[in-house]
Amino acid sequence: MAEPGDRYEVRLSGSGGQGIITAGIILAEAAGVYEGKNVVQTQSYGPESRGGAARAEVVISDAEIDFPKVIRPNLLLAMMQDACDAYAHDLVEGGTVLLDSTFVSDAPHGENIYAIPITEVVREEAGRAIVANIAALGIITGITGIVSRDSMHEAVLARVPKGTEALNEKALQVGYALADEHCTTRP
Amino acid sequence: MAEPGDRYEVRLSGSGGQGIITAGIILAEAAGVYEGKNVVQTQSYGPESRGGAARAEVVISDAEIDFPKVIRPNLLLAMMQDACDAYAHDLVEGGTVLLDSTFVSDAPHGENIYAIPITEVVREEAGRAIVANIAALGIITGITGIVSRDSMHEAVLARVPKGTEALNEKALQVGYALADEHCTTRP
Repeated sequence: MAEPGDRYEVRLSGSGGQGIITAGIILAEAAGVYEGKNVVQTQSYGPESRGGAARAEVVISDAEIDFPKVIRPNLLLAMMQDACDAYAHDLVEGGTVLLDSTFVSDAPHGENIYAIPITEVVREEAGRAIVANIAALGIITGITGIVSRDSMHEAVLARVPKGTEALNEKALQVGYALADEHCTTRP
Repeated sequence: MAEPGDRYEVRLSGSGGQGIITAGIILAEAAGVYEGKNVVQTQSYGPESRGGAARAEVVISDAEIDFPKVIRPNLLLAMMQDACDAYAHDLVEGGTVLLDSTFVSDAPHGENIYAIPITEVVREEAGRAIVANIAALGIITGITGIVSRDSMHEAVLARVPKGTEALNEKALQVGYALADEHCTTRP
């Protein structure tokens, strides 16, 4: 967890349909709306975006944010192999990588690398793979403490489609449990 | 409509629950994914965001985008009075303002100002006020031509919750009809 006032950069990456953009919005709202931090959340699209890659960036700070783009992430979520290959080496020293090992088989080595079969576990525990993005947010919340579990819970409920609240809450709980299981030094 | 290569800046503003963030994502995906332009889409949250104001920005260009934030919008959507008061005077010369006159009673005067009771018309024509954001996207597409109607249609269908496609398509059609009605010089 960053010190107060520090800039904390998050890059979420995967493929279209994995809910990466939605995850970025929810993380930004958890920090910005429910914790009152300064947050800028960005998606970039270019001619290559037809290929199906999805990326969302969130910059969180207690201070004003001058530059809204991620420079060297403190946290990377990679839900596809390509995303892992492209971004895993951009991290700040001591940064954290969360990989969905359902789709990423060739993982980098090092400290603070969490390779968890997020989609597979969510499919088993919550019944629907489509909420893997919400489980990933639960893991990120659990291992980094960048937002509180209460703020994340509120942000998830405010943003998911009506009628899917229970499914998304279950996915979030799956994420928290995975974080607790993989993270010995809880914030 | 901007010349090719020009930077085109859009600011969407209103209150939480009006679907402003979703509208920003859809506009960005219409231009970036379906038309292959360079697009950066941003939300900013600060301690004031608990007040319920929502703002999303989209920068569209045929060239690389150096600075991802909106400086002087070419197009402003204001779905609440406060948003209109705060942003209507930031526009580039000749810029376009689209107001939801359901909620904005005190509108600025000038050229290229469209005051349309978007939410009221959508409630009547599509049966649900909740899709006013999609109707607004239809109006924006119709009056600016910044993206094609086909690209907007694809982007809407790709992003709205499953089961709501027909409702959202209806809202988009309502938006196109409003644009045709209010805009004598169609692109």
